Amino acid sequence: MTRRLAAEALGTAMLLAIVIGSGIMGERLAGGNVAIALLGNTIATGAGLVVLITIFGPVSGAHLNPAVTLVMLIRREMDARTAAAYVVAQGAGAILGAWVAHAMFAEPLLQISAKLRDGPAQGFSEFVATFGLIGTILGTRSRPDTVPAAVGLYIVAAYWFTASTSFANPAVTLARSLSDTFAGIAPASAPLFIAAQCAGAIAAAFLFGWLLKEKPRL
Amino acid sequence: MTRRLAAEALGTAMLLAIVIGSGIMGERLAGGNVAIALLGNTIATGAGLVVLITIFGPVSGAHLNPAVTLVMLIRREMDARTAAAYVVAQGAGAILGAWVAHAMFAEPLLQISAKLRDGPAQGFSEFVATFGLIGTILGTRSRPDTVPAAVGLYIVAAYWFTASTSFANPAVTLARSLSDTFAGIAPASAPLFIAAQCAGAIAAAFLFGWLLKEKPRL
Amino acid sequence: MTRRLAAEALGTAMLLAIVIGSGIMGERLAGGNVAIALLGNTIATGAGLVVLITIFGPVSGAHLNPAVTLVMLIRREMDARTAAAYVVAQGAGAILGAWVAHAMFAEPLLQISAKLRDGPAQGFSEFVATFGLIGTILGTRSRPDTVPAAVGLYIVAAYWFTASTSFANPAVTLARSLSDTFAGIAPASAPLFIAAQCAGAIAAAFLFGWLLKEKPRL
Amino acid sequence: MTRRLAAEALGTAMLLAIVIGSGIMGERLAGGNVAIALLGNTIATGAGLVVLITIFGPVSGAHLNPAVTLVMLIRREMDARTAAAYVVAQGAGAILGAWVAHAMFAEPLLQISAKLRDGPAQGFSEFVATFGLIGTILGTRSRPDTVPAAVGLYIVAAYWFTASTSFANPAVTLARSLSDTFAGIAPASAPLFIAAQCAGAIAAAFLFGWLLKEKPRL
Repeated sequence: MTRRLAAEALGTAMLLAIVIGSGIMGERLAGGNVAIALLGNTIATGAGLVVLITIFGPVSGAHLNPAVTLVMLIRREMDARTAAAYVVAQGAGAILGAWVAHAMFAEPLLQISAKLRDGPAQGFSEFVATFGLIGTILGTRSRPDTVPAAVGLYIVAAYWFTASTSFANPAVTLARSLSDTFAGIAPASAPLFIAAQCAGAIAAAFLFGWLLKEKPRL
Repeated sequence: MTRRLAAEALGTAMLLAIVIGSGIMGERLAGGNVAIALLGNTIATGAGLVVLITIFGPVSGAHLNPAVTLVMLIRREMDARTAAAYVVAQGAGAILGAWVAHAMFAEPLLQISAKLRDGPAQGFSEFVATFGLIGTILGTRSRPDTVPAAVGLYIVAAYWFTASTSFANPAVTLARSLSDTFAGIAPASAPLFIAAQCAGAIAAAFLFGWLLKEKPRL
Repeated sequence: MTRRLAAEALGTAMLLAIVIGSGIMGERLAGGNVAIALLGNTIATGAGLVVLITIFGPVSGAHLNPAVTLVMLIRREMDARTAAAYVVAQGAGAILGAWVAHAMFAEPLLQISAKLRDGPAQGFSEFVATFGLIGTILGTRSRPDTVPAAVGLYIVAAYWFTASTSFANPAVTLARSLSDTFAGIAPASAPLFIAAQCAGAIAAAFLFGWLLKEKPRL
Repeated sequence: MTRRLAAEALGTAMLLAIVIGSGIMGERLAGGNVAIALLGNTIATGAGLVVLITIFGPVSGAHLNPAVTLVMLIRREMDARTAAAYVVAQGAGAILGAWVAHAMFAEPLLQISAKLRDGPAQGFSEFVATFGLIGTILGTRSRPDTVPAAVGLYIVAAYWFTASTSFANPAVTLARSLSDTFAGIAPASAPLFIAAQCAGAIAAAFLFGWLLKEKPRL
């Protein structure tokens, strides 16, 4: 169990270092061209996710995301106690990862984002983004070799097809609220994002549970 | 059958949300640099297609495209009634997906594109684009694990090597006529596109049917 | 044999339509930003190659390149007569593919490139480019599933790491001399390119033949 | 053994030709837009690494990196004498590769970089970059088919999420100090990079050795 929690924490830390670090890099290099900054952010995040899930999948399942852990809890593939420990490890790892990114780019470690991301369209975007992410995971896990690439590619797409650039992960949302950089989100906007993510995850758990011919277990 | 049709509808909806959503994102961020907008649109669409075919392939075959369904009908792998139901599900899903994209980007749901895409070069582009898409599918389906990546990569190429940016899908064409954004096509241009797509699909069904050493079944 | 030659001709035609078509698209959209034009050209060519080799590999071996056929001849895996027929099919297909690209973009079909690509650095680039391509093929063919992605990824790299943007293919060189667009090469520069490509291919055949522990068969 | 050392030398030479060559190409084409130059540099390096590890993995293990060889020595999977020979082959190959890149782009062969890359944030970036690289290798090598793509994708991410653009390789650092181009590093900055890389590699060897449930062998 220690190793599983360490994998969740380390994996989520690496994910956040990638997401926030590549955001800073993109912003610094792109000279105001936001599309190019997002392009760099996108390929780094997608590529990194494939690697992290490949490495940590066999150890902890590589959730790296409380919304995924929530779905596993709903599906009764995980007990509540383990799920809670996973979420704590993910949250702690995510915050650590944000600080690692700041340290690499000689930014102050402790920051609070001022970037508001509000309104129903942003919330709906996060609902759709997380719905699709959970669908991707549930639709591929019977063929475990396909999961890492599918999740990485899904996020590549979702960075561009959702108006919120697809956070789709409460731990990521928390940590990005602690970074006043390209990838940041103001703490005031975080609750909407997290609520929409949980709603999208639950909706996907039910719809894909039915669609993929599994018996509903709830 | 319900699940198969639901998979076609949901898959095509997600495809259109990706195609139109990433087009809007690209256009908004790229500040008039159309090449960069198309780059974002391309990687999102290609990545998304790999995921959708991986997920929905085992459920419905993941046609997500009336031109593909037409080829399966020609090859007598599908009866006319099922094919018709597939096409209706794809069309309905596609329109829904366009609306989801609009909602995520706080655009009016109901739109009509004003972007004319006319002339013989555009029609020939759609013929070639769909010819290649069907060739890709027929050339890989005996090795099912290779289909999702092959189709996604083909569309990545086709967004750039055809003058029409490769719609190659009548349901996509229909739904994009209902979006006055980057990915839109004026309804007046849609019939040419759809006719060229069907012609390209049929040509590929025969040529690749022979080339791949299968016995023609028509 | 007819099918094999048809596969070489059709595959090479599709390759050239991709290479030249995406070059025109990149040039038109990028507004003078050559790096972005090359980026689009690169991902289209790399993605397209993976697809073409996946489809046509089982039919003809998917050489699509006289330098590859030359290596197979040197290795005595092919007789001279078949090799000659392959090369003719590749050349004819390549020219057809250039014309298809021109037709899709409403360009005059018949063109001659005026873009000189001269000097020892260009020649050395083509030597290196083709050396690496043959090394990639020889180094992966014992694991056939890895060939398409390896070749596509190699060309993605080679478009950027060689000063000539890596033609690495005499049939491609011939056809690109017939296109006065982004991908063109003046006919006066073609002999240097083709000679360097053949030299690089032969060097790789011997070096990798030894390195990969195969017995030299010449 | 000759073949193994030749593979390490040739593979590292090709790696450096790719890294430095694509850096020059990006810089020349991008007209001052560093983000686009880095994008080209990134996809070329990532794609090239996948190919090189696929080809040379079965011959020499495709370390192509003294930090990887160091880890194998620490893990007692390699004796000191072989490890030393590997490192010499890697270093010699790397320098040769830099010169090949210069020759392809008609640059003077012998150069010294003037690009200082100093300070604790740069050193920490290299620590993190190499830590992640070794974690990727140790986390995937029990499934050898996944190694090439995982390493290539990791480097794609690391070019963007570390402030140093992730050298993560002492042989690469040495050779890039001999190139006054986009990818260069002043010799005065090299020792910090190499020390940080070794520290990151050793840290990863221990942490991932534990995390992946292997028995520590030191």
